[in-house]
Amino acid sequence: MATQPATTGTGHDSAAVRAVLDRARQEGRTSLTAPEGKAVADAYGIPTPKEALATSADEAVSLAVELGLPVVAKIVSPDILHKTEAGGVEVGLESPQEVAAAYRRIVANARAHDAEARIDGVQIQQQVGAGEEVIIGATTDVTFGKIVVFGLGGVLVEVLKDVTFRLAPVSHEEALSQVGDIKAAEILRGVRGGRGVDREALADVISRLSQLVTDFPEIAEADLNPVFASASSAVAADLRFVLDFDPPAPPKRFSREEILQATNRIFKPASIAIIGASNEEGKIGNSVIKNVVNGGYSGEIYPINPKADEVYGRKSYKSVADVPGDVDVAIFAIPAKFVAGALEEVGAKGAAGAILIPSGFAETGEQELQDEVLAVARRHGVRLLGPNIYGYYYTPEKLSATFCTPYDVAGGTALTSQSGGIGMAILGYSRSTHTGVSAIVGVGNKADIDEDDLLTFFGQDDNTNAIAMHLEDLKDGRAFVEAAREVVPKKPVVVLKAGRTSAGARAAGSHTGALAGDDKVYDDILRQAGVVRAPGLNELLEFGRALPVLPAPKGENVVIITGAGGSGVLLSDAVVDNGMSLYEIPPDLDSAFRAFIPPFGAAGNPVDITGGEPPSTYEKTIRLGLEDDRVHALILGYWHTIVTPPMVFAEVVSRVVEEARAKGIDKPVVASLSGDTEVEAASAYLFDRGVVAYPYTTEKPVQVLGAKYRWARAAGLL
Amino acid sequence: MATQPATTGTGHDSAAVRAVLDRARQEGRTSLTAPEGKAVADAYGIPTPKEALATSADEAVSLAVELGLPVVAKIVSPDILHKTEAGGVEVGLESPQEVAAAYRRIVANARAHDAEARIDGVQIQQQVGAGEEVIIGATTDVTFGKIVVFGLGGVLVEVLKDVTFRLAPVSHEEALSQVGDIKAAEILRGVRGGRGVDREALADVISRLSQLVTDFPEIAEADLNPVFASASSAVAADLRFVLDFDPPAPPKRFSREEILQATNRIFKPASIAIIGASNEEGKIGNSVIKNVVNGGYSGEIYPINPKADEVYGRKSYKSVADVPGDVDVAIFAIPAKFVAGALEEVGAKGAAGAILIPSGFAETGEQELQDEVLAVARRHGVRLLGPNIYGYYYTPEKLSATFCTPYDVAGGTALTSQSGGIGMAILGYSRSTHTGVSAIVGVGNKADIDEDDLLTFFGQDDNTNAIAMHLEDLKDGRAFVEAAREVVPKKPVVVLKAGRTSAGARAAGSHTGALAGDDKVYDDILRQAGVVRAPGLNELLEFGRALPVLPAPKGENVVIITGAGGSGVLLSDAVVDNGMSLYEIPPDLDSAFRAFIPPFGAAGNPVDITGGEPPSTYEKTIRLGLEDDRVHALILGYWHTIVTPPMVFAEVVSRVVEEARAKGIDKPVVASLSGDTEVEAASAYLFDRGVVAYPYTTEKPVQVLGAKYRWARAAGLL
Repeated sequence: MATQPATTGTGHDSAAVRAVLDRARQEGRTSLTAPEGKAVADAYGIPTPKEALATSADEAVSLAVELGLPVVAKIVSPDILHKTEAGGVEVGLESPQEVAAAYRRIVANARAHDAEARIDGVQIQQQVGAGEEVIIGATTDVTFGKIVVFGLGGVLVEVLKDVTFRLAPVSHEEALSQVGDIKAAEILRGVRGGRGVDREALADVISRLSQLVTDFPEIAEADLNPVFASASSAVAADLRFVLDFDPPAPPKRFSREEILQATNRIFKPASIAIIGASNEEGKIGNSVIKNVVNGGYSGEIYPINPKADEVYGRKSYKSVADVPGDVDVAIFAIPAKFVAGALEEVGAKGAAGAILIPSGFAETGEQELQDEVLAVARRHGVRLLGPNIYGYYYTPEKLSATFCTPYDVAGGTALTSQSGGIGMAILGYSRSTHTGVSAIVGVGNKADIDEDDLLTFFGQDDNTNAIAMHLEDLKDGRAFVEAAREVVPKKPVVVLKAGRTSAGARAAGSHTGALAGDDKVYDDILRQAGVVRAPGLNELLEFGRALPVLPAPKGENVVIITGAGGSGVLLSDAVVDNGMSLYEIPPDLDSAFRAFIPPFGAAGNPVDITGGEPPSTYEKTIRLGLEDDRVHALILGYWHTIVTPPMVFAEVVSRVVEEARAKGIDKPVVASLSGDTEVEAASAYLFDRGVVAYPYTTEKPVQVLGAKYRWARAAGLL
Repeated sequence: MATQPATTGTGHDSAAVRAVLDRARQEGRTSLTAPEGKAVADAYGIPTPKEALATSADEAVSLAVELGLPVVAKIVSPDILHKTEAGGVEVGLESPQEVAAAYRRIVANARAHDAEARIDGVQIQQQVGAGEEVIIGATTDVTFGKIVVFGLGGVLVEVLKDVTFRLAPVSHEEALSQVGDIKAAEILRGVRGGRGVDREALADVISRLSQLVTDFPEIAEADLNPVFASASSAVAADLRFVLDFDPPAPPKRFSREEILQATNRIFKPASIAIIGASNEEGKIGNSVIKNVVNGGYSGEIYPINPKADEVYGRKSYKSVADVPGDVDVAIFAIPAKFVAGALEEVGAKGAAGAILIPSGFAETGEQELQDEVLAVARRHGVRLLGPNIYGYYYTPEKLSATFCTPYDVAGGTALTSQSGGIGMAILGYSRSTHTGVSAIVGVGNKADIDEDDLLTFFGQDDNTNAIAMHLEDLKDGRAFVEAAREVVPKKPVVVLKAGRTSAGARAAGSHTGALAGDDKVYDDILRQAGVVRAPGLNELLEFGRALPVLPAPKGENVVIITGAGGSGVLLSDAVVDNGMSLYEIPPDLDSAFRAFIPPFGAAGNPVDITGGEPPSTYEKTIRLGLEDDRVHALILGYWHTIVTPPMVFAEVVSRVVEEARAKGIDKPVVASLSGDTEVEAASAYLFDRGVVAYPYTTEKPVQVLGAKYRWARAAGLL
């Protein structure tokens, strides 16, 4: 039996893989033998050690000599998946005698392990072991589908879980970033004068494997473990493939055109029917019609109530079928058991969307009722929002289609939540901080409309310039990533993924039946998609409020200008914590700053103007920072003094920033205000004028700037 | 030459170490040779491999055979510290021939490296290499003095910096906790069925080394690297000692009695002199006297002003010497250059403290002026606060000795800051949130009074029950740790250490000339001292405000009760993030909860009562959680509904908690309120009644509870 080369080139031999998989399917197997695995790897150019199959001890010896000692010997049996546990692997065989003895032991062990096992022979493999041991794998994630994983072998993976994930397929460049993304990446670049490994070769293996599992969805899992990475190569020393010829059906997908056609009618309806609109105070159907009317919605409003002629001063109809004109949106405020019936009529009427406020569906165990409603919707081509939601707001249309109170501060932020409680926090927080909002949307049980539909709409919506989403799971992670990749170059997408921790994930499970995936998978893949992840609820709200206020930075050079040296230290800490770095100010600019500050003030970065300075010192240094092209973002630290009171500082900063904007200089400026309670009004004044300012915290302004930078990098602006 | 045993028992042979160190000192050396290092290790019972010194190749061979092959050979020369770089180490010598050849090569390499080097011979050492390779070391930290370090060898230390520090000396128990504190500690406990290593033996080595460097301060550094840890032993395979016979003088220390005598007079003065008290509006000396008088201070007030007969309605004196009665505290509101002269008079008058508000000392480069003032103070036994501060507040005495506005919300929190800007943030935030404060103190340049003095005072001050400190450095870290260890069992100590990151540390350096130590050292040692570290300014303020409000938990069983399932998920995430875990509710208690909630609500933990429930459901479930002895802390998640509006929730919770307290049940209860803006007033209402509640955030209440737990564990209450 002739030995095979390490690789078969760079092309993909799909037919060869198909042949292997077809045989496995015919034989009813869910795994591949080692030679089959090698054939699959060869077909996709994944390098493996030279090897061949021996069917006798003598043949094992002659192959070992031909391949070059030392060799590894492994049982080949379709019935033995975990070869090591079966005593089916021996390594470091250095002489013909050792090879022959190992052959006999392995076959005997396999027989002892499983007397019925089919034994095809023993694979004799060139032993590779130089360089670093890494793990490359692919699996089928319940949320994202095919994903690839990379990590360093041994304790780094097993104990410290130092691995990174990416959505498959990955390009060579993405794979290279994945290789560099583990915490211990320095090891691969070479430590203590070591040469490092061929990261290009590793990226090549990742990219090829990701393409393989994408082309052949029935490969449910693939483990290349270990892969030996040297300075000049990467060789997969062991391969394991698990097959699934009967995978779950992929989620229903709509085209971008279909999504936009429906969502544009839902968010900008010419007419609304309110199913269950009521004159009775305290009823949800009463709150909804009041809010729609009093919120200022100017389209047609049709109350539907079989028992009333008029509701809240509008002519009422027994059924949607009786409505004279078209209906774009039907808002449901009736008990769960009546929804399916009413939805038939709404569907017949040609509505684009049904807003299902009622609870009593999947969240209370009534999955069948929810499925029935969805089936009706699909039959009529109606998209569902909910059920089990507070409704939705869209301020450009003055639309408050909800049982909560109306919201009227129009602006650029669209917020969505999977939970009603979080939705209420969004509403209260936005109102309290005067956040300019384009939309607030509850998605609830997500029987139909999901975050990817909303991303697609808000991405092209001119009234929205930042999107902030609370979610506990994604029904179709891949669709979400695709939508996010489309939107991120245009506007920031912020996500609070609840259920990060195992305790949180358990709580999510009991809440919505959502299977929260491994958080590291979410984290890596959301980042890969350019999404800014909010660590908590407060940050989701704050990023949602502040990101549209800040202009995008045009470079990485961040400068702190502070009146309080102590704030300067804390702001510097925050800069590093949030993935930015302080600009090393060049000598000429440093001199220019020094000209404005007292001799004992500290130039460099932070520029410490010292505490006793008048407004003019803040003014001159901030103007210099704004007007110098090499500076891309400013962080201001204010210290309350009698010489420069808080509102004076706020007015000076606002004026200088406005003057710069008039000249076409639009840089992000954030501020931390330390002082007595007047700094609260000063912060609000600044925020209203485009300077993201907070009292009593050095962390928050920098965290917001850091989020803006993360987005700008993901959007390709830097 | 006879071989030596691996250890010499458990006692400490101080005389043997003294002899080695004396010889090194006499010879003008700052390092020890390998045999000397071994002698020192032997004297303190630190196990090392068996070894002996060979002075010829033949002797090397016979020793190697006697010790047992394989062996390691190392050059012995007082002039060669880095033996490997000099070609002076060979390992894995397996035969007499290899040993002889290695001896000759090593000596030749050493001569080539340094022809002048004194060569004592070649050390032949039993080769140890089984088990895990770890690093144990000791060094002299600029802030904390002698500290010990522990880490796993290889890439984990070099790339991932997975090391832990402790203040020396450490007990065996502390050392054991240090061993368990590295991220990869699981490796030591045994992974994948491995047996793990003898952690007791490792702790023993750490503890012995920590005692050695404590007993012999001239040992500036000690590296045991590697130490081989097996299932039954820990052996230091290589030793390196660096000596410093001329260390910097230790900082001035006062006894506890001296500190309390001075600080009790400073915080509770019977009389105050205001040096530079002025009638002129806008002057600091005018603001200070106004604040002292209007703040309500009831002791004697003596304005000192050479040009006025009366200041702000009080008789004024030309000099402190003219004051008829005693003076406890003198507040300085005069330019820096006049401070030393006035301090002579204040000292002669027998004042306990001088509050130096003026700037213009070390922070502007005038270190000599500051040293001069300190010398005057030391001569008279006056303690200095500052210079370069806003002053201090002590509400139990209605004392506002500051140029800022008075503060009058008395309560249990003492706050200190190194920076005036941060001090102003403390003032504004406290005022805005009605934080009950015992003291606010600026320490500024810390020419004299330092955080350890203040900790000592507040620790025994019955008016203070929590201490929150902002600091950029510690002048005497060891004194701080000793003070903290005294205080922590009685009340929480929270520290915001600014300059955590390298950028932050650089800014701290330019601000106060403070040398910010390696943050990991601070982090580990502050934790060892039981200090709760605040990650940022906002947390410092929030912990300071909230910790005194919460009772201490009596156990680790945390239960979430929530009306919003979505909040429950985020609260669960926060529980894990903050080092707590959700109690696994036993079946009988679970049934008891289920009896109160709808069938589709989720018992377990979180207890999800669902959103539409009336106040009575909150009431019953919260009462159950309070009254069941197995539950130790409650986290509440509120969802704004018409059925249970925010203030109704707040009243119900306050009442249930109050009823429980009346029965002697005092558990920490925190709450996250999701809803429209009414939740802000409801949160404030709850906070005032001992329930730490926040609107629009699921993170903050849990973060505060986590801080309380960290303290309770450190205080030995759990």
